[in-house]
Amino acid sequence: MSSSLKESGPVRFASVYSEVQNSRLSHSLPLPSVLKNPFKIVEGPPSSAAGNPDEIAKLFPNVFGQPSSMLVPSDSAEQQSNRTLKIGVVLSGGQAPGGHNVISGIFDYLQDRAEGSTLYGFRGGPAGIMKCKYVELTAEFIYPYRNQGGFDMICSGRDKIETPEQFKQAEETALKLDLDGLVVIGGDDSNTNACLLAENFRAKNMKTQVLGCPKTIDGDLKCKEVPTSFGFDTACKIYAEMIGNVMIDARSTGKYYHFVRLMGRAASHITLECALQTHPNITIIGEEVAANKQTLKSVTDYITDVICKRAELGYNYGVILIPEGLIDFIPEVQQLISELNEILAHDVVDEDGQWKNKLRNQSQQLFEFLPEAIQEQLMLERDPHGNVQVAKIETEKMLIQMVETELEKRKQEGVYKAHFKGQSHFFGYEGRCGLPTNFDSTYCYALGYGAGALLHSGKTGLISSVGNLSAPVEEWTVGGTALTALMDVERRHGKFKPVIKKAMVELEGAPFRKFAGMRDEWALKNRYISPGPIQFIGPAANAINHTLLLELGAQA
Amino acid sequence: MSSSLKESGPVRFASVYSEVQNSRLSHSLPLPSVLKNPFKIVEGPPSSAAGNPDEIAKLFPNVFGQPSSMLVPSDSAEQQSNRTLKIGVVLSGGQAPGGHNVISGIFDYLQDRAEGSTLYGFRGGPAGIMKCKYVELTAEFIYPYRNQGGFDMICSGRDKIETPEQFKQAEETALKLDLDGLVVIGGDDSNTNACLLAENFRAKNMKTQVLGCPKTIDGDLKCKEVPTSFGFDTACKIYAEMIGNVMIDARSTGKYYHFVRLMGRAASHITLECALQTHPNITIIGEEVAANKQTLKSVTDYITDVICKRAELGYNYGVILIPEGLIDFIPEVQQLISELNEILAHDVVDEDGQWKNKLRNQSQQLFEFLPEAIQEQLMLERDPHGNVQVAKIETEKMLIQMVETELEKRKQEGVYKAHFKGQSHFFGYEGRCGLPTNFDSTYCYALGYGAGALLHSGKTGLISSVGNLSAPVEEWTVGGTALTALMDVERRHGKFKPVIKKAMVELEGAPFRKFAGMRDEWALKNRYISPGPIQFIGPAANAINHTLLLELGAQA
Repeated sequence: MSSSLKESGPVRFASVYSEVQNSRLSHSLPLPSVLKNPFKIVEGPPSSAAGNPDEIAKLFPNVFGQPSSMLVPSDSAEQQSNRTLKIGVVLSGGQAPGGHNVISGIFDYLQDRAEGSTLYGFRGGPAGIMKCKYVELTAEFIYPYRNQGGFDMICSGRDKIETPEQFKQAEETALKLDLDGLVVIGGDDSNTNACLLAENFRAKNMKTQVLGCPKTIDGDLKCKEVPTSFGFDTACKIYAEMIGNVMIDARSTGKYYHFVRLMGRAASHITLECALQTHPNITIIGEEVAANKQTLKSVTDYITDVICKRAELGYNYGVILIPEGLIDFIPEVQQLISELNEILAHDVVDEDGQWKNKLRNQSQQLFEFLPEAIQEQLMLERDPHGNVQVAKIETEKMLIQMVETELEKRKQEGVYKAHFKGQSHFFGYEGRCGLPTNFDSTYCYALGYGAGALLHSGKTGLISSVGNLSAPVEEWTVGGTALTALMDVERRHGKFKPVIKKAMVELEGAPFRKFAGMRDEWALKNRYISPGPIQFIGPAANAINHTLLLELGAQA
Repeated sequence: MSSSLKESGPVRFASVYSEVQNSRLSHSLPLPSVLKNPFKIVEGPPSSAAGNPDEIAKLFPNVFGQPSSMLVPSDSAEQQSNRTLKIGVVLSGGQAPGGHNVISGIFDYLQDRAEGSTLYGFRGGPAGIMKCKYVELTAEFIYPYRNQGGFDMICSGRDKIETPEQFKQAEETALKLDLDGLVVIGGDDSNTNACLLAENFRAKNMKTQVLGCPKTIDGDLKCKEVPTSFGFDTACKIYAEMIGNVMIDARSTGKYYHFVRLMGRAASHITLECALQTHPNITIIGEEVAANKQTLKSVTDYITDVICKRAELGYNYGVILIPEGLIDFIPEVQQLISELNEILAHDVVDEDGQWKNKLRNQSQQLFEFLPEAIQEQLMLERDPHGNVQVAKIETEKMLIQMVETELEKRKQEGVYKAHFKGQSHFFGYEGRCGLPTNFDSTYCYALGYGAGALLHSGKTGLISSVGNLSAPVEEWTVGGTALTALMDVERRHGKFKPVIKKAMVELEGAPFRKFAGMRDEWALKNRYISPGPIQFIGPAANAINHTLLLELGAQA
């Protein structure tokens, strides 16, 4: 990868930019007004944890309980320190639109408020910290990535800093580069890791402060003080454009049911947001499926029922949204898979299917209910540990087959007379690397600029927090929240492990309730909305997404 | 479908429009200057046919040989007739962005130049003509569809008017509605059908004139006088945005080869255009594969070679474009499939695979070369006639598996040491129903407005032709070309059948030559371009696509 990185700066720039990419380079990034003038930091009361505060306190003796920090205007007399800083930044995990702007924000803070400072970009994710692979980020190097998608400025990686040796390597890098601070841009795991690093550096009396930044298109890293993770807005708007197009296709052709699988393995925020933006006929929300302990059969029946009702109205087409992680939300499927893993590991799978008798009754029924192709996939595709690969199952295709079978049955019974034709789609990669929306561009820039301010003020163990997002940018609040305040513990291998709990779709939350109040109408009447390309130009460019707007409205 | 159609007018309009859709409603449609002032029609020399003119002349005794018509400015003295018209319009075949604007153009012509005229929209494609299912199109009805994607104003269908009974039905409808003219908006087959209708009405001494309009996102309906089919521009720009995003993803992650299948079963224009817009590492053009009589193995080897060379440079990622119809271009695959159809129809397929000995040597080798999943698909998925369903094969997934196998072999041989991870994509439906680009919006409006003028001038058997497209809209030329001039004959069931030959990618044409001159550089260096959303807003909104620009440049 090193040679590609060597080239990425200059190649990114120059003639290979499209007109839109070029025009985005000069898109101006407004700052919240608190960042444009002298500011000081006010602290709130000591913080606790999302759960099991005693255990979290034990795991983080040096950084637990820190108050949240908020930037507020200040007289110039109370100015920030004039010290110059050496800061490192790393991108961790999957891409999300806006990551480059977080880096731009940190850089610009250092330029504006801590002249003479240095910013290092660690290459290829946390491995770059451990191996001390970095590049010094200059204005020239950063410029071509402003408001651009992807993470290719310094690339990302999925390694974790976990073992004592790995922490040692991180310490060596911090010492070698004389780092005052490190900004970890990542999801829940990466921010947990950032906090462990902060704790470790403090424990070793090292000066290196560590801050986190909330990144994930899945939208499942958020809390009251961190209202959204960056990238979610862009990804949803790109998916919503595609879904809107497919809706027009469905209505024009009049004969296809489009089953659209969307990213989001652990939580269904993307699916919910896209539903609110486009009004599909059917939307499956994993959290609801889990809460109602639905089975694959009941999900299939729900879809089939709507299709039959629509057929009676003369509509033999529709659009159905499905979260990528759907089957992870269905308890019986989890059960089946764990039994299959057990059987496949220890028993002979005979051709006559006698092995199936080793499945529990319910699991056996479920297995027989699955389409043949899915049965085969479950038996054949295994990961290196011999386990069934759930992630490889194309949920939308599976549902199409199950719905087909169910409709065929109803046809035999005379209750369904129409034609069903399913078309499968997966909208994933094309969304997570799009050009960031105006919202994500500005939000990320503020997250980065704010992180610079927090580091300059000596903070560690916080996650950069920008709030009041439904107001104009000038009024956005900027500060930091104790990472430990987001944490709970999980017991693994007999030990407590700190985790930032993924924020799931709340069935009592405003976004879900809005959706739930409208879905019956959407199911039978065609209330499709086709948003068009709305990332950053045109009338909707500055609109924030529904989820965020509704959540903020509910809070207010 | 009828109840959905009943609702589509009012539902389309009103609150269910997104901001972008609304803003597009007021996007103004400039007309070529010849359409803004009094014009007259000048005719060229008599036309011939694309092939076998004698046979075409025999098939179309009444409309063969018509000169092309060109609108030119005129003194008001030589004005058009003042007669009012009764016109029908029909959308035929798959959707393409801009169809609604063709209808708007016809309507506005009638309003502007033939006051008191009536426009009927036949519902659900040619079946609407045969069954006399129509709606009278009013300003109010049409307005919500201006500059909008899809075909849902009157919907489309794939029926053909072929048998004597069907022609009779069409005649009855024409008589019942007292039609002066009919505009058929469709692809090659639909335009052939339009010409047969024109011929038939003339032969019966009926007054109904018939004109065609060039529609298909695949871009394979074009000739010198019809420089492009509408929808191609929009679809390519939408796909190119998605491809550009995936490129950024590839470069950011550094570990995926994205195999992108694009629409275009018969010709590879979309794939070529998207390549010119985005500069992928590998692009397969079906026409070249056919011309070079490539095998599936040689295509696989080509891809694998590039992957190996890139690995040596440290790039273990990339983007590969594949036309949907690739395997139709490979002679050996066609041979295998016809042999399989024969065997499956007449022989027993034994489990031991003895049946394979009935395949010819080369076919047997090819079959063994195919990934197991594809072998199974070929044997199991049959159409109602028992034939192998080639269209169901997901070419991009097949290629990923074949490349994997080949790379594994090379790893054993020690010539490849890296990791390969393929990701498959199909960009299709989300492109064909997008909001039309500025180009398609304007082009379609001119096609429709021009068709109105041609009908008003008494023309029949022509295809609406708008040219000089690289010039500003004011300078575009408007006229009609004899449909028979686009035709050749094919012998089917011992009879000559007229066909408009699909325009294939010309290996000597400017677009392909430009691509061929750059692909080696794109293969090894990363010259990715990420166009972003460019349908109609922003700096690139008015740019015409590369294919058209290069073809026009080559002609000039």
